[in-house]
Amino acid sequence: MTEKPSIPKGTRDFTPVEVVRRDFILDTIRKVFTRYGYLPIETPAMENLSTLLGKYGEEGDRLIYKILNSGDFLSGISRDELTHDSAAKLSFRVCEKGLRYDLTVPFARFVVQHRNELVFPFKRYQIQPVWRADRPQKGRYREFYQCDVDVIGSGSLLNEIELIQITDEIFRDLAIKIVMKINNRKILNGIAETIGESQRMMEITIAIDKMDKIGPDLVNRELAGKGVSKSAIDKLQPILFLEGDSEHKISELQKILSQSKIGTKGVEEIYGIFNYLNTLSTHSPVELDLTLARGLDYYTGAIIEVLTAQVEMGSIAGGGRYDDLTGIFGLPGVSGVGISFGADRIYDVLSQTNGFPDDSESSMTLMFANFGEKEEKHCLTLLEKIRKKGIRAELFPDPVKLKKQLAYANARNIHYVALAGESEITGNYITLKDMVSGEQWQVKLDELIRKVSGA
Amino acid sequence: MTEKPSIPKGTRDFTPVEVVRRDFILDTIRKVFTRYGYLPIETPAMENLSTLLGKYGEEGDRLIYKILNSGDFLSGISRDELTHDSAAKLSFRVCEKGLRYDLTVPFARFVVQHRNELVFPFKRYQIQPVWRADRPQKGRYREFYQCDVDVIGSGSLLNEIELIQITDEIFRDLAIKIVMKINNRKILNGIAETIGESQRMMEITIAIDKMDKIGPDLVNRELAGKGVSKSAIDKLQPILFLEGDSEHKISELQKILSQSKIGTKGVEEIYGIFNYLNTLSTHSPVELDLTLARGLDYYTGAIIEVLTAQVEMGSIAGGGRYDDLTGIFGLPGVSGVGISFGADRIYDVLSQTNGFPDDSESSMTLMFANFGEKEEKHCLTLLEKIRKKGIRAELFPDPVKLKKQLAYANARNIHYVALAGESEITGNYITLKDMVSGEQWQVKLDELIRKVSGA
Repeated sequence: MTEKPSIPKGTRDFTPVEVVRRDFILDTIRKVFTRYGYLPIETPAMENLSTLLGKYGEEGDRLIYKILNSGDFLSGISRDELTHDSAAKLSFRVCEKGLRYDLTVPFARFVVQHRNELVFPFKRYQIQPVWRADRPQKGRYREFYQCDVDVIGSGSLLNEIELIQITDEIFRDLAIKIVMKINNRKILNGIAETIGESQRMMEITIAIDKMDKIGPDLVNRELAGKGVSKSAIDKLQPILFLEGDSEHKISELQKILSQSKIGTKGVEEIYGIFNYLNTLSTHSPVELDLTLARGLDYYTGAIIEVLTAQVEMGSIAGGGRYDDLTGIFGLPGVSGVGISFGADRIYDVLSQTNGFPDDSESSMTLMFANFGEKEEKHCLTLLEKIRKKGIRAELFPDPVKLKKQLAYANARNIHYVALAGESEITGNYITLKDMVSGEQWQVKLDELIRKVSGA
Repeated sequence: MTEKPSIPKGTRDFTPVEVVRRDFILDTIRKVFTRYGYLPIETPAMENLSTLLGKYGEEGDRLIYKILNSGDFLSGISRDELTHDSAAKLSFRVCEKGLRYDLTVPFARFVVQHRNELVFPFKRYQIQPVWRADRPQKGRYREFYQCDVDVIGSGSLLNEIELIQITDEIFRDLAIKIVMKINNRKILNGIAETIGESQRMMEITIAIDKMDKIGPDLVNRELAGKGVSKSAIDKLQPILFLEGDSEHKISELQKILSQSKIGTKGVEEIYGIFNYLNTLSTHSPVELDLTLARGLDYYTGAIIEVLTAQVEMGSIAGGGRYDDLTGIFGLPGVSGVGISFGADRIYDVLSQTNGFPDDSESSMTLMFANFGEKEEKHCLTLLEKIRKKGIRAELFPDPVKLKKQLAYANARNIHYVALAGESEITGNYITLKDMVSGEQWQVKLDELIRKVSGA
C-alpha cells in the first residue's frame, strides 16, 4: 500500500530552519518573562469539554476540536436521537474531551484546582500550542502557539506597568518597532453610562472606532441605526472629537465622565499608568486609544493591544485586566491581568523584515570527511576531544566520494570540513578547509580547535 | 454556575517546579543532539488518520485519539449503519484526524513529504508530546513527551556508534548510571533459521529471555508448548548456555550461526559496533543481550535498550535500525536508525534519586518590598538598572504589611529582599536582606548588584 502523505489543512510541519527561528522568538519571550519573576506552568492538550464549553461564546464552542470517546461512543444514545440535524448537539455526547482552545481558560482552571499549592500573587507564564477548527487562511492556522503571561491575585496597577515593561523589552529584544494602544473597559462603560446608553457599550465603541475612516456623519447615522437615542448621540460628540496626546485626552475625559463613578475610576486607572510610565525608560510609545475594546467579555479594566507599523498585520500581542475569570470555576473575586503574545504573527513580521538572526548559529560547525574504516576510528577519537570543547561536529557516515561529502557539507551550511586521510595520519596533522572563504590549512588538533571555535 | 474543575484521567498539569525540572531533562537531551549535528523538526499534533492507522497494530489503532469531524459528522452515514455494535468501525468514518501516537510515523511521513527539501543523510531530532488512549497507571500517562533522534539515508554502522555515544553522553550529563543492552534482529532471525524454526523468532526470543528466571528445563518446556520441534530445541541449547562477556559470546555465535547468511550478517554488525566502541571512551557499559527483541515490527538490524540499575523501572530509552520505514509512504529502500528517550521515565528516575539540580536556579533572585506609591517609583527605576544586569528581580505589587511580603518572598524561595523606604531614599542607600543567612546590609546600588549576582 502506498499513500501520498499529507497533513490536515491548517496545520504545519516545521523544518529545522523554521524550528530554530520559532524557538528564537519563544526563547526571547521566555527570557524576559523569567527576568520579571514569572514562573512557567503547562496544562494538558486535552481538557474536559465541561471546562471549555460556554467560555468562548457560541462560535467558540463550535470551533473547539472534540475528541471522540473511546470504545462504544454511541453508548447511551438511542437510535431515535441519531439524526443528522442533531449532529451539533450529539457531538457533545459522543465526546467528553476537547483540545485546548486558548491558554486563559486552562489557566483559570489551573489556578482554582491548585489554589492551595500556589503563592499569591501568582505570576505565571505559559507557552503552548492551541487548536481551533477555524477556516484556515493566510496567517491563520488551526494549530498555533500562544505565549501568555499573567499575574493573578493582585489588583495593583503595578502589574499593568510590569506587563507594559515586559512587552517593551520583548519587542526591543526582537528588534520590532511597536506601538502599545491602551484603553480601559471602565472608561468605555463610563462613556455609555454618561450618554445614557449603558447597555450599548460595544456598539458605541465600534462606532467610535470608525471615526477615522468614515467621519462623524456616518458614525452618528450608524449609532442612530443601532437605536442609540438622539440625545445620547449629541452627548457623545465631544468624546468623538477628542484630540491631542494621551495626557490631554485623559484630562478632558476626567471632566466629561465626572458624573460616572465607573468612568471616573477608569480615568484614574489610565492616569495612574501614564503617571508611572513617565518615571520609566520604556522605548515604545504607549497611546490611549478610546476605540480599543477587545472582544473578550471577561475584561473589566485596562486593555492593551500591540501593533507594529513595519508590516501590514493585525495586533501581535494583546491583553487586559479581568476581575473574575476564576469565578466560573468556584473561586470568585480574584483579580488578574495578563497579556498574550502571538508567536506566529511575530514570526511573520520577522520573516517579512528579515529580522531573524543569522541561521549559521543553528547549523553545524565542523564535518570530518570519511575515508574508510581505518581513518574513521582516528576521526572518532579526534571528534571526542573536539565535542568536549562544545563544538558542534560530526563525521560523514559513509566513505563515499569526497565530492559528494563536500556537497553535503555545503547543503548543510557546514563552515569547516576536516580531512584526516592516510597522509594526514602519518604526518600527524589535519587538513582544515574553510567552506566559506575557500582557505585551507594543515593544522594540529589544538590549532584546529582554536580556528573552528573562532578564538 | 460553579463546577469543580478537573482534567482528563491520565493527563497532568505541570506546576512551575515540574516544568523547570522537565525542561532540565529536555534541554540536556537537546544540547547533546545538537552537538552531534542533529537538526530539530516538529510535526502537527493532528495527523490524518490515514497516516496513522495500520502502523501500530490493531491494539495501536484502538489507542489513537480520534478527532470528531466538524459540522455534521454523521454526513454520509445511513441510519441503518448507526448501531452500537459497529461503533469501532464508525469511529473511522466520523473522524478524519487523530492525535500523534508516536514521533516515528510522523517522521517517516515528514521525510517522504519533504524529501526534495532535505539533505541526506538527514539527521533529525524531535521533542514533542504524544497521546495514547491507554489505561492510565503508575508511570504511564495519556499525554507524554518523546525525544527522538534518527539518521535516515545511511546504512553505515557509524550511525549506531554515534547513537551509542549520544546516549552515553546524555545520561552522563543527567548523572544517571545506565547499561546499554544491544542486540541485532538479524541474529534473532539467524538463530531461528539455524534451528529450523524461521517463523518462530519472537517466541524463541521470549523463551530465551526467561532463562535467568525459570531455568533451562522450563524454558524448553515452554518452547515445546509453543510447537517448537524437539530437534530445534536441542539445537538451541548451546545458545541458551552462552556465557561470558560480549566478545566471547560474539565469537561463539559466529560459529553457531555460520550456516545462516542473515545470522552471520547480524554477528558481523554487532562485532563492528564493539570494534568501534573499543577505540572510544564511552563511560556506560554496552552489553550484548540475546534476549532483547523489542516489540516493533519495523526493526531490521541493531536494537538498543537503556536500563538503569538505580531505580526499579523499565527501559528509559530504546531504538534500533529499520530498513524500510518510509516505504509505506512511497519511498522504499531508505535505511535509518534511531533512538527514543522517555522524558517521563527519566523524570521519575531523577525524582527518586534526588538527581535534579538545585531548584534555586529557577527561582527569583531579588524582591523589592512595597512601601507605597512614592517608594514604588523609586524602586521601579532601580529595578530597571538591576534587570539590565540580567538579574531576576521584582517589586511586590501591593503596599501590604511587610510581614506578608516577606512571607511571600519566603514561599517563593526568593534569595534577597531589598527595602527602599523613606529613610533609605533620604539616606541614598538600600537595605538588603539575605533571606537564607538572615544577614542584612546597607548598600549602594552597585554594591547590591555585586552581592546579588554573587560576584
